[in-house]
Amino acid sequence: MRIKDNYLRSLSDGREVYYRGKKVDSIIDHPVLKVAALHAAKLYDVADRGHSNNKKEKMAEPEISTYFLTPRNPSDLMRRHELIYSTTKFCNGVFNISQAIGSDALFALSIVAKQTDRKYNSKYSVAVDDYHRFIARKDLTLAVAQTDAKGDRGKRPYEQNDPDMYVHVSETQEDGILVRGAKAHTTQAAVSDEIIVIPTRAMTPSDANYSIAFAVPTNTKGLKMIVRPIDELEGNSSNVLSRLDYELETLTIFDDVFVPWERVFLFKQYEMAGELAVNFATFHRFTAVSYRSATANLFLGTAVSMAKQNGILESAHVKDKLVDLIMYKELMRMSAVAAANSPLMREEIAVPNPVYTNIGKLYSNRSFSHILDALVDLSGGIISTLPSLEDQNDASERSYITKYLGAATSGNERIKMLRLAKELGASSLTGYLLTLMIHAEGSIEASKLALLKDANIAEAESLVNDIISQTTN
Amino acid sequence: MRIKDNYLRSLSDGREVYYRGKKVDSIIDHPVLKVAALHAAKLYDVADRGHSNNKKEKMAEPEISTYFLTPRNPSDLMRRHELIYSTTKFCNGVFNISQAIGSDALFALSIVAKQTDRKYNSKYSVAVDDYHRFIARKDLTLAVAQTDAKGDRGKRPYEQNDPDMYVHVSETQEDGILVRGAKAHTTQAAVSDEIIVIPTRAMTPSDANYSIAFAVPTNTKGLKMIVRPIDELEGNSSNVLSRLDYELETLTIFDDVFVPWERVFLFKQYEMAGELAVNFATFHRFTAVSYRSATANLFLGTAVSMAKQNGILESAHVKDKLVDLIMYKELMRMSAVAAANSPLMREEIAVPNPVYTNIGKLYSNRSFSHILDALVDLSGGIISTLPSLEDQNDASERSYITKYLGAATSGNERIKMLRLAKELGASSLTGYLLTLMIHAEGSIEASKLALLKDANIAEAESLVNDIISQTTN
Amino acid sequence: MRIKDNYLRSLSDGREVYYRGKKVDSIIDHPVLKVAALHAAKLYDVADRGHSNNKKEKMAEPEISTYFLTPRNPSDLMRRHELIYSTTKFCNGVFNISQAIGSDALFALSIVAKQTDRKYNSKYSVAVDDYHRFIARKDLTLAVAQTDAKGDRGKRPYEQNDPDMYVHVSETQEDGILVRGAKAHTTQAAVSDEIIVIPTRAMTPSDANYSIAFAVPTNTKGLKMIVRPIDELEGNSSNVLSRLDYELETLTIFDDVFVPWERVFLFKQYEMAGELAVNFATFHRFTAVSYRSATANLFLGTAVSMAKQNGILESAHVKDKLVDLIMYKELMRMSAVAAANSPLMREEIAVPNPVYTNIGKLYSNRSFSHILDALVDLSGGIISTLPSLEDQNDASERSYITKYLGAATSGNERIKMLRLAKELGASSLTGYLLTLMIHAEGSIEASKLALLKDANIAEAESLVNDIISQTTN
Amino acid sequence: MRIKDNYLRSLSDGREVYYRGKKVDSIIDHPVLKVAALHAAKLYDVADRGHSNNKKEKMAEPEISTYFLTPRNPSDLMRRHELIYSTTKFCNGVFNISQAIGSDALFALSIVAKQTDRKYNSKYSVAVDDYHRFIARKDLTLAVAQTDAKGDRGKRPYEQNDPDMYVHVSETQEDGILVRGAKAHTTQAAVSDEIIVIPTRAMTPSDANYSIAFAVPTNTKGLKMIVRPIDELEGNSSNVLSRLDYELETLTIFDDVFVPWERVFLFKQYEMAGELAVNFATFHRFTAVSYRSATANLFLGTAVSMAKQNGILESAHVKDKLVDLIMYKELMRMSAVAAANSPLMREEIAVPNPVYTNIGKLYSNRSFSHILDALVDLSGGIISTLPSLEDQNDASERSYITKYLGAATSGNERIKMLRLAKELGASSLTGYLLTLMIHAEGSIEASKLALLKDANIAEAESLVNDIISQTTN
Repeated sequence: MRIKDNYLRSLSDGREVYYRGKKVDSIIDHPVLKVAALHAAKLYDVADRGHSNNKKEKMAEPEISTYFLTPRNPSDLMRRHELIYSTTKFCNGVFNISQAIGSDALFALSIVAKQTDRKYNSKYSVAVDDYHRFIARKDLTLAVAQTDAKGDRGKRPYEQNDPDMYVHVSETQEDGILVRGAKAHTTQAAVSDEIIVIPTRAMTPSDANYSIAFAVPTNTKGLKMIVRPIDELEGNSSNVLSRLDYELETLTIFDDVFVPWERVFLFKQYEMAGELAVNFATFHRFTAVSYRSATANLFLGTAVSMAKQNGILESAHVKDKLVDLIMYKELMRMSAVAAANSPLMREEIAVPNPVYTNIGKLYSNRSFSHILDALVDLSGGIISTLPSLEDQNDASERSYITKYLGAATSGNERIKMLRLAKELGASSLTGYLLTLMIHAEGSIEASKLALLKDANIAEAESLVNDIISQTTN
Repeated sequence: MRIKDNYLRSLSDGREVYYRGKKVDSIIDHPVLKVAALHAAKLYDVADRGHSNNKKEKMAEPEISTYFLTPRNPSDLMRRHELIYSTTKFCNGVFNISQAIGSDALFALSIVAKQTDRKYNSKYSVAVDDYHRFIARKDLTLAVAQTDAKGDRGKRPYEQNDPDMYVHVSETQEDGILVRGAKAHTTQAAVSDEIIVIPTRAMTPSDANYSIAFAVPTNTKGLKMIVRPIDELEGNSSNVLSRLDYELETLTIFDDVFVPWERVFLFKQYEMAGELAVNFATFHRFTAVSYRSATANLFLGTAVSMAKQNGILESAHVKDKLVDLIMYKELMRMSAVAAANSPLMREEIAVPNPVYTNIGKLYSNRSFSHILDALVDLSGGIISTLPSLEDQNDASERSYITKYLGAATSGNERIKMLRLAKELGASSLTGYLLTLMIHAEGSIEASKLALLKDANIAEAESLVNDIISQTTN
Repeated sequence: MRIKDNYLRSLSDGREVYYRGKKVDSIIDHPVLKVAALHAAKLYDVADRGHSNNKKEKMAEPEISTYFLTPRNPSDLMRRHELIYSTTKFCNGVFNISQAIGSDALFALSIVAKQTDRKYNSKYSVAVDDYHRFIARKDLTLAVAQTDAKGDRGKRPYEQNDPDMYVHVSETQEDGILVRGAKAHTTQAAVSDEIIVIPTRAMTPSDANYSIAFAVPTNTKGLKMIVRPIDELEGNSSNVLSRLDYELETLTIFDDVFVPWERVFLFKQYEMAGELAVNFATFHRFTAVSYRSATANLFLGTAVSMAKQNGILESAHVKDKLVDLIMYKELMRMSAVAAANSPLMREEIAVPNPVYTNIGKLYSNRSFSHILDALVDLSGGIISTLPSLEDQNDASERSYITKYLGAATSGNERIKMLRLAKELGASSLTGYLLTLMIHAEGSIEASKLALLKDANIAEAESLVNDIISQTTN
Repeated sequence: MRIKDNYLRSLSDGREVYYRGKKVDSIIDHPVLKVAALHAAKLYDVADRGHSNNKKEKMAEPEISTYFLTPRNPSDLMRRHELIYSTTKFCNGVFNISQAIGSDALFALSIVAKQTDRKYNSKYSVAVDDYHRFIARKDLTLAVAQTDAKGDRGKRPYEQNDPDMYVHVSETQEDGILVRGAKAHTTQAAVSDEIIVIPTRAMTPSDANYSIAFAVPTNTKGLKMIVRPIDELEGNSSNVLSRLDYELETLTIFDDVFVPWERVFLFKQYEMAGELAVNFATFHRFTAVSYRSATANLFLGTAVSMAKQNGILESAHVKDKLVDLIMYKELMRMSAVAAANSPLMREEIAVPNPVYTNIGKLYSNRSFSHILDALVDLSGGIISTLPSLEDQNDASERSYITKYLGAATSGNERIKMLRLAKELGASSLTGYLLTLMIHAEGSIEASKLALLKDANIAEAESLVNDIISQTTN
């Protein structure tokens, strides 16, 4: 299997990346972006990350990354959940998307390709399977670009004033297609080997041109990536976590990018765009509840530590907030465990139960800000007024700061945890995480719609109708 | 296996039951109490309720009630969850406690008896196993009496002014013990064959006399049961559900009741009282989330039907409330599925994961009143001002009522569902269910304590300490 | 001013009232309905209920009921709030609507009559003023019928299959009109002297026939009132509050009822229907937050008393719930105080600030079920399993019940409070109050719309636009 | 009255201020700190900020800052609320504490000085009045230092290992005292003329040494101020608000600072420390709900603008969130209006109603994170992945960014609002504000205790006891 260095070296492949108004020559030499690359690279150091390949997958390799193992049953999904959870912990509580999101997309593509082939007599399954094998053999990292620029949210793709607001076919050629448009907040795109592109929503006949899925290497000509500013690393000198691990997002621009036919996985079959979006969403939300339960440890652990160091662990209101933190972490995990153990089978692939998956995600969407409340309350106002690292290190101030920030533990010890508490609860990371917990892996409204569609409401209606039918007066 | 009639006939055994100020001669002939008995009896009509006995249980019977099958692995727990869920639906959404709670207690007694025997060189395991086999062979129904009268909640058992506020040993005799005290709200006690009595809390050395567990037949001398008034049946002539199914509770008084040694399962080993209470609570809360998810169908189904009949199903605020109802139902179920699939093994018995179980229960405690809000909002104010059944049936009023209560469906059809909506959302059943959803299966505070004790907080602390240790500036 | 007996005697006037399928001959002799009448009659015993009439009102009477004093400034509104609050307390925490809702409607009619007269050159102001003076001089009680039967909620009045689903003009005659239709849940209609009828919503040109307002005496021919079943009185023998005070609601049927022109306050000016509905809603929601803050004392007082008697007053979770109960009560009151002190002036009438009024109401809608949670949690599960009054009074059971229900106070004392706690938290009154707190005085969605319309959003947009305009980079 | 320049010049007075590890020579020349100074200085540009002095205040000046007008009645408190609200809006929604917090402290000191003088025959009133007049005449800015370093929160001041964890008398001298210790997060201390110091909590006899109140000029010898890092200005190049207005906080160290007797307002009368803390808290929380309602406009305005620009204003879930934003803003304001109109009179000073004040504050504490949720949801995930200002200004990227960030408005226009939305919802300001909304003006637990103490619970208990006493069966 691939080793870390191979991955890191491959980043110097001419990809077009911008950061803070400048084109980045070498990611691995960039003081900020290299952190995202090294974070991604940790994937290759996860213990026991490989899985003996089963024959069904038709690959020669004796072992592939467990991420690329197609789930066929509850055990496979539980193994996947545990892998995502442990990898997130291995990366200090920060999600490592490098093979997670790509495999989510591959599984969804596999299902929809088969459905499409049956319906349209197409051959997408061959292309998807070939690509799956290629990725698995090479043990590559992948980004998935789904969310289009979108333009006016009140209009469909074909209704936009500017036709480029959703990624679309700009020209059909003999050996492939040109695509044009932009995808927003593509996580780790700039440090991934490949990018898979899928539709962001269901499409109508008029949107056929926008109904496409494909994959390209990150260094493809015409592909431009503008990385968000990593304020949590550059704008908070006290940070401790972001200097170890963070993930970048890009505005990902497709300026008439060429895609050969063998990498096109959907081409104008507009009826399948929604299917692909939804199947990906289900896999990816399963990934979400898995990593979020691991990330929740950051908040639970910091809150408990701060409460101890502040000397308030035994207060009733503190315990109440710890219960909320525990519920957040464990409800995510509970959602993953239940979803893994009650899968739907589609095209011989085990899809995590969408009802349980969406419940976990919705709980996370709705409750994360309470988790922030809890952390902030237990840590104390000092996390927003903490003297800077520069003050902490200044000879004339240090002794005062150390003295006066001591509590149930020494100032030196407490300041270390306060830096993490500030980073999580009162810094730019706070704002970034809040947005992530609300918007990542699909909007709240999208999850509500999924629940209304997938839940067994008929069972409930049938029960009350039975009761009514037994009424005799 | 036992048949319904055998159970119903056995109720006439001289048990001392009071209802509304009168001693009840024959439960099965009592217009109100017979409904609770017939509800219990439905247990014997559940399809496929038996399970082929495995050898480990050491019973001659080829088949026993699945309720009495000791869970040894996730599959057993999943089967138990499905059984409780389907039995509740079979009983029109009303929990059937008849063999559920008793088996919860038997499993907890099995675990704690083994622990106690090891620690105190006692022989409780033999007694518990014999009793388990006796119950399973006879296919009996059981109540469990746990919550003591308690007196002043600020004092421990031995500190109470009246020593009877917790059930205790009033006299030790050669062949057994006399017990004295009262247990509150014992569900279905008056219509069960046997009552198992266990401690309600952890005990101190001074509380040794209160640290007892035992079982007695319901018609034991000195045992008196005062049944709560069934206002939902007698006080709401429009009711449709309560006349089909309800469960009674009793104030259960032990007036120097004799218990032979072979039915004594704990005797003054005060250190084990808390263990027994907690192990029972975990099993019983697993039962709770299982039946509550089934009961939730009543609210979901009625709300959907009312929304349709009112003509508002497509409104955004209606869909939002349906999402909340779905979340309530499915989160309970998700809790059960996750708990079943991640059990703890204690004394070779699979205990439902206590973290997931308590999270489901806490969510139910906290969210049920929102479920009421949703049902009431979607049904409309008419559920509290609905003309009475007598008005609906009066010749001079009927046509007006039918005319003016029509909406997207006819008045006749809508009134039927309105009666159920009133019963669930604006009647004495509403108040009863709200209390049940908050207090049954243990208090909110008890579940919080369980979470704080059982959750893996150390994992979270370890993660943040690792991050701190990587901080170099 | 009028005295109680005059009111009670006047109830025997031939009005057509039905209860539980029977026509009621004499309300005051009816064992159930007389309680609602005696409750209404308490109005006449409220101390200092009169107000010296000011000349502007153009009435000969030296003193009129303060309820009928048109508010001209913050003091008048504060006096009105205090009157509603104290009258509610005088009636044991139960709202007394007898002159409150009628005056709410009169104020709204005064405003809209002037607006309509200006716009349409009509003479409604004269009719409204005359009627206001008539009511004030006679010191009468009034019901207001607003909520129509409505039929399919997805259709407008004129679109209904049955044209009677909203009250409408069925015939125009020389001296008046005939009206037809039904209004739902008209509070205290059967025990009021007069009924004012107003539109339930905004109307379109096609709905002109439905755009009417008028008043009739309760015993008018063709007016039929079907009273909801008072389950809280008849179906809970332990009740203590409902036997003292409750309010009835009726399905109020207008079967071609004649209204003389001098009692018609709006006739087909469809553009004013919404204005009337909204102005009434604002006054009536001000009344709502005023009485609800008084009613909240029932929950706060019972919860505190139960916590004391249970011996748990000092627990942190108990205090938290008391804080929630206090917030509920005082936030209602705060809403009324702020609304009274920041009125809008319309046609020289002080209208309670609609933003503050609707905020108070929305908080009540959303939070009442938490208040139930709090009461139920602090009272204990015993409120749903409390032995019946008949058991409490039975010689052979009494001593057991008294003994085992004692806690930090004696069983006799605690049972009294438990009866009230059951009535509020675990009885049919619970369900009735929950529906009331969600639906009375307008739906949640209606209050949201009012907030979106009335709140000063432009101020906020202006602020952020100012900031943007100062951005120079 | 004083003019802005006079204030700004006075900052160069030798005060000992540290920022990011360096002593600051000239605040007004410091690129970061000068923004806080200019923000403070805006106070002097507020229109109509003066108030004709009434004789009771015994000052020669014909006009003083309205902030320093002692409130004697509801009108004075309403004027104060409006002043704080309008000043906050004048400062772009950012609170201007410069004369607000100081006057809060002066009013509390006036009340408690009189109470102390009566009880202890002391002369603090003279000192407080003199100081009040001095401040008002000079029209100075003030910081208030209340929250001590605190050390182990589980121990009282005198129990701390390090006696300096609470500010205390380190030496008593003939002409004054030396004080020692540190106060945390003192808002705007480094840019204020004077600092008032008051106790943070109630004290016991053993804490007498810690029971002190006094005032000192900011440039007093031994006073050291370490300013928190202004990450929202320095760490987010897209910011638009923080470069206009922000407030700094300091760790404020008293290293044996001398205070002359005439500036000592409490000296070891430990019984009065709690009174002073609580009276200040009430005034300051009234200030809090006043400025928070103004600040809320930032969130409401940005959310509305983003919803419009995204093209989603008419969606039901968007309107729901706008309702929540409106409720947040207006509930704060409603709290202030009600508190101003229902004051308590203490020592002839109108104290804002503490119940209404604390309810407003608690609602803010509990709901602010929902407000963040709403803003983030309506703005979209793009606020956390927005290309940096540097990218926006880069020639080769600009056209792509502008093109693809357009929606219902042009990219250029939308980006401006996105920068503000990011600053409020996904930046270090987000975290800072969340901490502020939870911790500023006293902890959540402190406000709960205040409510339990001040609310009229007896009224509620009396009501339910009356009902019980009317029970006859």
